[in-house]
Amino acid sequence: MHGLRVRASAAALGLALLTASPAAPQVTSAPSRDSTAKLPDGFVKEFGTMWTFEAPPLDYWQARYGFTPTGAWLDHVRLASVRLPNCSASFVSSGGLVMTNHHCARECITAVSTPDSNFQALGFVARNQADERKCEGLYVDQLQSIEDVTDRIQGAVKARAPGQRVAQRNAAIAEIEEGCRQGTGLNCQVVSYYQGGIYSLYRFRRFDDLRLVLAPEGGISFFGGDPDNFTYPRYDLDLTLLRVYLNGAPFEPTDYLKWSANGAEEGDVVFVTGNPGSTGRLLTVAQMEYLRDVQYPAQLGSYDRNLAVLRELSQRDEPTRRALENQIFSLENSKKAVTGYLSGLQDSSLMARKRAFEHDFRRRITADPNLRARYGQAWDAIAKAQREQTALAQQQRWYGFGGSPLLNAAGGIVRIPEQAKLPDSLRLPQYRGQGLERIRSFILGNVSGDAEQDKQMLQAWLTQASKDLPKNDPYLRTILGGRSPEVAAEAAVNGTALADSATRATLIEGGAAAVAGSNDPLIVLARKLNPIAMRVQQRSTRLSDAISANAEKVGQALFAAYGRSLPPDATFSLRISDGVVKGFPMNGTIAPYKTSFYGLYGRSAEFDDTPPFRLPERWKTHRDRLDLAQPLDFAFTGDIIGGNSGSPVINRNAEVVGLVFDGNIEQLPNRFLYTDEVARAVAVHSVGIVEALRKVYEADRIADELEGVGVR
Amino acid sequence: MHGLRVRASAAALGLALLTASPAAPQVTSAPSRDSTAKLPDGFVKEFGTMWTFEAPPLDYWQARYGFTPTGAWLDHVRLASVRLPNCSASFVSSGGLVMTNHHCARECITAVSTPDSNFQALGFVARNQADERKCEGLYVDQLQSIEDVTDRIQGAVKARAPGQRVAQRNAAIAEIEEGCRQGTGLNCQVVSYYQGGIYSLYRFRRFDDLRLVLAPEGGISFFGGDPDNFTYPRYDLDLTLLRVYLNGAPFEPTDYLKWSANGAEEGDVVFVTGNPGSTGRLLTVAQMEYLRDVQYPAQLGSYDRNLAVLRELSQRDEPTRRALENQIFSLENSKKAVTGYLSGLQDSSLMARKRAFEHDFRRRITADPNLRARYGQAWDAIAKAQREQTALAQQQRWYGFGGSPLLNAAGGIVRIPEQAKLPDSLRLPQYRGQGLERIRSFILGNVSGDAEQDKQMLQAWLTQASKDLPKNDPYLRTILGGRSPEVAAEAAVNGTALADSATRATLIEGGAAAVAGSNDPLIVLARKLNPIAMRVQQRSTRLSDAISANAEKVGQALFAAYGRSLPPDATFSLRISDGVVKGFPMNGTIAPYKTSFYGLYGRSAEFDDTPPFRLPERWKTHRDRLDLAQPLDFAFTGDIIGGNSGSPVINRNAEVVGLVFDGNIEQLPNRFLYTDEVARAVAVHSVGIVEALRKVYEADRIADELEGVGVR
Repeated sequence: MHGLRVRASAAALGLALLTASPAAPQVTSAPSRDSTAKLPDGFVKEFGTMWTFEAPPLDYWQARYGFTPTGAWLDHVRLASVRLPNCSASFVSSGGLVMTNHHCARECITAVSTPDSNFQALGFVARNQADERKCEGLYVDQLQSIEDVTDRIQGAVKARAPGQRVAQRNAAIAEIEEGCRQGTGLNCQVVSYYQGGIYSLYRFRRFDDLRLVLAPEGGISFFGGDPDNFTYPRYDLDLTLLRVYLNGAPFEPTDYLKWSANGAEEGDVVFVTGNPGSTGRLLTVAQMEYLRDVQYPAQLGSYDRNLAVLRELSQRDEPTRRALENQIFSLENSKKAVTGYLSGLQDSSLMARKRAFEHDFRRRITADPNLRARYGQAWDAIAKAQREQTALAQQQRWYGFGGSPLLNAAGGIVRIPEQAKLPDSLRLPQYRGQGLERIRSFILGNVSGDAEQDKQMLQAWLTQASKDLPKNDPYLRTILGGRSPEVAAEAAVNGTALADSATRATLIEGGAAAVAGSNDPLIVLARKLNPIAMRVQQRSTRLSDAISANAEKVGQALFAAYGRSLPPDATFSLRISDGVVKGFPMNGTIAPYKTSFYGLYGRSAEFDDTPPFRLPERWKTHRDRLDLAQPLDFAFTGDIIGGNSGSPVINRNAEVVGLVFDGNIEQLPNRFLYTDEVARAVAVHSVGIVEALRKVYEADRIADELEGVGVR
Repeated sequence: MHGLRVRASAAALGLALLTASPAAPQVTSAPSRDSTAKLPDGFVKEFGTMWTFEAPPLDYWQARYGFTPTGAWLDHVRLASVRLPNCSASFVSSGGLVMTNHHCARECITAVSTPDSNFQALGFVARNQADERKCEGLYVDQLQSIEDVTDRIQGAVKARAPGQRVAQRNAAIAEIEEGCRQGTGLNCQVVSYYQGGIYSLYRFRRFDDLRLVLAPEGGISFFGGDPDNFTYPRYDLDLTLLRVYLNGAPFEPTDYLKWSANGAEEGDVVFVTGNPGSTGRLLTVAQMEYLRDVQYPAQLGSYDRNLAVLRELSQRDEPTRRALENQIFSLENSKKAVTGYLSGLQDSSLMARKRAFEHDFRRRITADPNLRARYGQAWDAIAKAQREQTALAQQQRWYGFGGSPLLNAAGGIVRIPEQAKLPDSLRLPQYRGQGLERIRSFILGNVSGDAEQDKQMLQAWLTQASKDLPKNDPYLRTILGGRSPEVAAEAAVNGTALADSATRATLIEGGAAAVAGSNDPLIVLARKLNPIAMRVQQRSTRLSDAISANAEKVGQALFAAYGRSLPPDATFSLRISDGVVKGFPMNGTIAPYKTSFYGLYGRSAEFDDTPPFRLPERWKTHRDRLDLAQPLDFAFTGDIIGGNSGSPVINRNAEVVGLVFDGNIEQLPNRFLYTDEVARAVAVHSVGIVEALRKVYEADRIADELEGVGVR
């Protein structure tokens, strides 16, 4: 569940191209057969099925399923699909109902709650239209058209130095997006495929009046909690229904997905439209080895360290426990995901397949003198840079401000005036483009400012750093100053005023002078640490720029060697994936393709109705109304990842048969290499949705609208 | 389920000491603390908890659970436990009810069925005592006393040659058993512990009038079929209730297990009394590597080959399908088990622990000059013999009569007169002691004689042998005679009369002369093959005798180094194992400690009520009577294996809380090394049994008797 939402931090780090911008509302023309090359044998599967709407694999679908959608079919499902800021969604009624996951609309559900009614806990059902509650700030984007802008962007990149190339590319992208916005009034965004092999301009119509229509209780939306997260069999009603309004009245979309009468059945061919956030299937073996041996282990260490601190703090009292609950859950969620990614990279058969692909790929490039000259060195260059990053890893890991939220804020406050003076190409990557502004507003707003928590996190961080770095390390000596981690952390945080957002604002507004004149202990510390850290970070930036530049070459090489027959890695842009509804071998037996309400009540009873397996009250009082044998969730081989949360699952008739909300644990390694032997996407079943709406929520008004009762 | 029954073939091969025999009815005295040494740290866990009643680990139980059973408690549960020919069972009412698994009483259930009523499919409930049906030939043995006879047996073994030592040991055992039988009128059996490190004389009272009281439908006893076999979560009511009669009236045992009011709850300490068939925890690393690299892969290849033939034959028609169903299931069951064993041996962490133990063990032996002189060479001698067996493996695998049931019978017919002439110590191992007689009666009785099946199995066997053996191999050349496997198999089986049991009987009774004079094509072939095969088998026998002799030394060394603090490997003798009721981490989430009736109906619905997930009719019509939240099965850390089927699970008060019927898939490697992180035993829950008896089977008469309603 949570796993499929693009998390803000991930988006900020990995999806820098995703900031919004607009263009001429041309409808994408229906794809011709010419745009879909024959699929090369043997490598199709590993790159998965996150197809773009520009190059739908018509031959492949025909060969595999005997199904060739028309251009009208593809336009229809594209226009019925919409994107939330960090999730996917779709129009599902003629009256403008939008279906997504409960966890995608959590902020709205909390925001419209009243002191007497916590809708997050209790659920919410609008009994009539007047009762539908506005979600302030929420919007959905509908993709109007796509235009290839690769030549314009690649033509604008003329420098040789990687950092300058990045800056020129970003400038060209910003110019195209801004021109599009001004010309069309739409939201425009340049999306990259194949690590920069192709750039496409996406033009979106934005709808910004969304109202909450129905949200189940948190206890059933996220039934099974962290244990069941990223697993299947599953028993969640992870659903929210919103409605788009235009000029104060329900919007009536021309293109919306009708409701299937039967829902998903075993063996059915289904499609998912949505916005997968990020995959790494085109990474080179050297990049994957770096993740496996350096980055992921360090990340997991940091999750464990922070979880230990937060769990200890949680014991303090009930309000603290409640305040930290979300942070803890978010860390557990990340830990589970990264553990799954790592297990994939540690699987020797996965790596062997990856190596075999890379071998074939490089052979194709080497065979053509022209391609070899342009791209042939990219793999070795990446491997070299990764080796250097590995040598730098311990310093890179600790030379920063990652110990605690307040130290992190102090580091940002010290760096913002410095970085602002530099041209884009010389900045640290996270300060480039709109990054600096994003960091500024993050520091002004979101810092969690509990001094005790800060102290403990800093102490745990210093304790681990003392183990990993040599005794005489300059960074460590500066921060410890001969003291124990406990004393040093105490000294750093004691007396700081940074927990106060007004203090942070004053420092940021005061710029370099305010920073230089501050006596705040964390600012003083950050000033001392910054020059030491900066030397390492600049070296690391040069390496990562070199990796990016060569990764772009690998992307261009892929396109040159295989054409568009292989779908590009996910970039939180609209894709259409195909799959089959199917159980799988699990734990010595077989997992059924669907779960049932019986199973839901069973799992609750088997844990004695204790959280996170406690059923909401309404599910107890209304049990006898339900047909318990009806399906609740189901599994299928669709290719999804974080960002696909809320994607509709549709059949050949473009009818809704389900609602994507997670994948099973076996699916996590699909980030790097798609498999469908046991990896499955997990969706709420359309029949289960209607069953629950009618029997548990007594919401015939809404169920009728979904099923089109009374509509022609 | 099936996995926990000692299969006849396994018993015949690996449990040669288990044939029955008797002694003076002395009640085993209550164990004193002296008999239980302190447990050495670090190695307890790997040897598991299959404790003997002679050396119950009182200190360990006290330290671990704060529980020290009295001698009376131990005598009581021992006498309440009984052994079926291939399963475990227990007295569970004052009226002589005996509880075991459904799959342990299958032959009886089939035998008492009528043409109109297939109780295997429909279930059986005796509405009153008169309706209880006699199970012809079935008996249970109740363990009266145990006596250490190690000195008598070891004293009788004076020869140096391994084969002769085996013969002397077997003769001493037979003499002790016979003396005991004549002296006491009891059934007596010498049981070996620690691979011959200790010998104990078990004296049994036999009850041979058992009547069927209740058996659920096959569909609920074995719900989930082969897919769910060896797995958990599980939803089986794998139960049969029998009643012991004495002189035509219900027997009223002094010692029977009372029914627990609440059944098993999470965290409860529980005990299992039963007869685990065979484990290999004392095997040396070399033995385990042989299983991993040679024996198990060959076994799996043979299962696959035979399954392919049987599945193809099954397509022929419905009667054939039904006739082969059990054979196919039995092969699938074995394949799943051996796959699990093999996966354990392929787990590098398991092997590393095994190596670490062996290192410590050998260090202890080497440290004592006396022990070193007696046992120090045993490991290397075993390793050497295993290497030689590996070199011989392909010949040993194919040089025999394993291709088909009828060729196998022909081989036996040819060999019986030859082997009968030899002294025990010079025979092939399977012809020693009572083995020859067992083979004779097997050939007279049980051969499945379908010529078409025989031909196909022979052909598949020859096809594989042609791949594994060199072209000019003498055995292969003899059997193929230049023909294709298909033609050779056809020629071998065409015209044979061995499918007829009277023909086989005539040949066996006619002895060497009848064999020499036979023109039956399979006998002719077996005569030609026998001398070639015999040379290899005799070499192989010498190697396995050497391994046995040295394994006995390893067993004696263990006893010398660790005393009785480590429980001996399973030998289908009565043990008491401790464990805790507990869920486990599974597939990214957690498996609950118990399952529920909800879960049962859920799993059925999720597979659309198709076999093997189809619910019996009575479970559909009676659904609303059930409290669906009640527990059906549960998981615990008890140490069980095939032979434990039907074992009672009891609490500290010696009350029944469950009925063992299987382990989860993670438990299979426990054959070699006990773990309890994820490995679990699986039992029917006592509360679920009573719930089903009262609500589904309307059998208050029986439920009342179990719960002791009306009994003081």
